[in-house]
Amino acid sequence: MQKRQLGPCVTFFPQPTTLVASTDNFGQINLMMASWAGIVSKSPPTMAVSLHHNRQTYANILETEIFSVNVVTPDFVAEADLCGLCSGKHQDKLSLTGLKTEPAKATGAPLIVDSPLNVECRFYKTLELGDYRLILGEIVEIYACDRAYNDNGTVDAKSFNPLVYLGGLREYWTLGAKCADAYSVGKTLVPHKNL
Amino acid sequence: MQKRQLGPCVTFFPQPTTLVASTDNFGQINLMMASWAGIVSKSPPTMAVSLHHNRQTYANILETEIFSVNVVTPDFVAEADLCGLCSGKHQDKLSLTGLKTEPAKATGAPLIVDSPLNVECRFYKTLELGDYRLILGEIVEIYACDRAYNDNGTVDAKSFNPLVYLGGLREYWTLGAKCADAYSVGKTLVPHKNL
Repeated sequence: MQKRQLGPCVTFFPQPTTLVASTDNFGQINLMMASWAGIVSKSPPTMAVSLHHNRQTYANILETEIFSVNVVTPDFVAEADLCGLCSGKHQDKLSLTGLKTEPAKATGAPLIVDSPLNVECRFYKTLELGDYRLILGEIVEIYACDRAYNDNGTVDAKSFNPLVYLGGLREYWTLGAKCADAYSVGKTLVPHKNL
Repeated sequence: MQKRQLGPCVTFFPQPTTLVASTDNFGQINLMMASWAGIVSKSPPTMAVSLHHNRQTYANILETEIFSVNVVTPDFVAEADLCGLCSGKHQDKLSLTGLKTEPAKATGAPLIVDSPLNVECRFYKTLELGDYRLILGEIVEIYACDRAYNDNGTVDAKSFNPLVYLGGLREYWTLGAKCADAYSVGKTLVPHKNL
């Protein structure tokens, strides 16, 4: 395949489209758009979010040590994008966007009501990476939209309707169609092997 | 929205579907399926990959200090999935899958030829997270499929055809349709503001 070199940049995808919700000591909630978010350990369950050190969200997390990562859907893509266009230092983003939160059960971290997948986190550690900070959080609880779970035990991913972010291209995309099952489709290549 | 609690697990998506390519001191290349991969800093450009500490890929990266993260497409989803079904300690995954690599220009890290987006990395640091290790790598170069770039300066994301991984559901999905432009669609909510 013919390639072109883009240089040492941050063009990489697909990525999640999320809002990180945090609060300061006075209960003022802030929302930050984040695509640099993901799981980094299963034992213990750990989430990582990376952000610029001057973000209000960074100050909030250091202050109250709780936050949530909330998956964005097309239903509130404009509201979420708006959170990435202004700063929590100058704007009350809940008022600005009309997005609603509710406190998570264990930690009280704000969860976005309209998000189909909320990850409740307790701050664990931060790591300095130039101008950025990698925040590691213990995953305390995952909240998933109930309508995606069918009576027969299957899960309908389309019900989550998660937005995919294409970093570098700066585009939000929807999910298309299921391509294959993981830990499964590879077996078709070696039917004689007992994997 | 009605939610159900899944407990402190690692159900989170969308995630990238990638193969991490590494090599040992003898030039033996290994491929590892990874969805816990992403950008964590823009300055300096930094990639993070998380993996279990007993992986061959972890030993390789500590040994040779180079690796690449390669986006998977539906064209080689079975080959990529097979890499997640067996261990590089017992299998030569290049022979097993027929996937081809070529050495990256600056570091010699193996890049998967059929991947539309390769991230060439130089090992920077590792962080212990229980049984897992977060590997941080300096992004040395990004290689992107040339056919996605149009003469008019636009980029056709569908040409990349990146597979999306739904962690927890264990499913690979394709991209659907473009929903909106980032750093843009939010402005429609506050047309009177100068953002």
